[in-house]
Amino acid sequence: MRALVIVAHGSRRASSNDEVRALVDLMRPQATGFDLVQCAFLELAEPSIPDGINAAIAAGAREVVVLPYFLSAGRHVVEDIPGFVTQTQQQNPQVPIRIAPYLGTASELPQTLLNLAK
Amino acid sequence: MRALVIVAHGSRRASSNDEVRALVDLMRPQATGFDLVQCAFLELAEPSIPDGINAAIAAGAREVVVLPYFLSAGRHVVEDIPGFVTQTQQQNPQVPIRIAPYLGTASELPQTLLNLAK
Repeated sequence: MRALVIVAHGSRRASSNDEVRALVDLMRPQATGFDLVQCAFLELAEPSIPDGINAAIAAGAREVVVLPYFLSAGRHVVEDIPGFVTQTQQQNPQVPIRIAPYLGTASELPQTLLNLAK
Repeated sequence: MRALVIVAHGSRRASSNDEVRALVDLMRPQATGFDLVQCAFLELAEPSIPDGINAAIAAGAREVVVLPYFLSAGRHVVEDIPGFVTQTQQQNPQVPIRIAPYLGTASELPQTLLNLAK
């Protein structure tokens, strides 16, 4: 069983966090290759990254992919998220946890932006 | 002549701003319908939003589309960017300036994220 955890920054605005939850809801029906898709937040919203990963493992995940929903390779992507993942990996050595490339690296972004502009 | 201005938050990390500039470079060859594609930053980097729009107009743009490179409808998207656009519109009443939907609303995002996760 394979889980995908989309990690967003988190916001004081509940509506911004709900946007991430709605996105994950849209992903689930399309998520071939993943039995479980959920979100987690670096800060300001729940679940935290460790809680999100641990929930996936508790639900039966035997492999977890963490995907940073971030546009640039700032401190959050380079240090904070890997830090939480390493910590959670140490608590769960039996489940491989991998970090996927962050959203800002997606090759589809130029065309996606052009579609929005039209 | 139609211009597209991609507005990012801006960062103290030069590399994060350069990621936006590189993205815009990737967009240019694909940007059918736009004669000019450039970036601007809400804060912490140059050009500012007014400077970016004014540069497009100075280069000959007769219509400008501003696209917020943001993932959620927080204060920056709801208030700050429209504020700068209104101010610049007032200074240039002859050139229509339109704000496109922000990146977080793109219907391609679920599949883009799933592609990154694989």
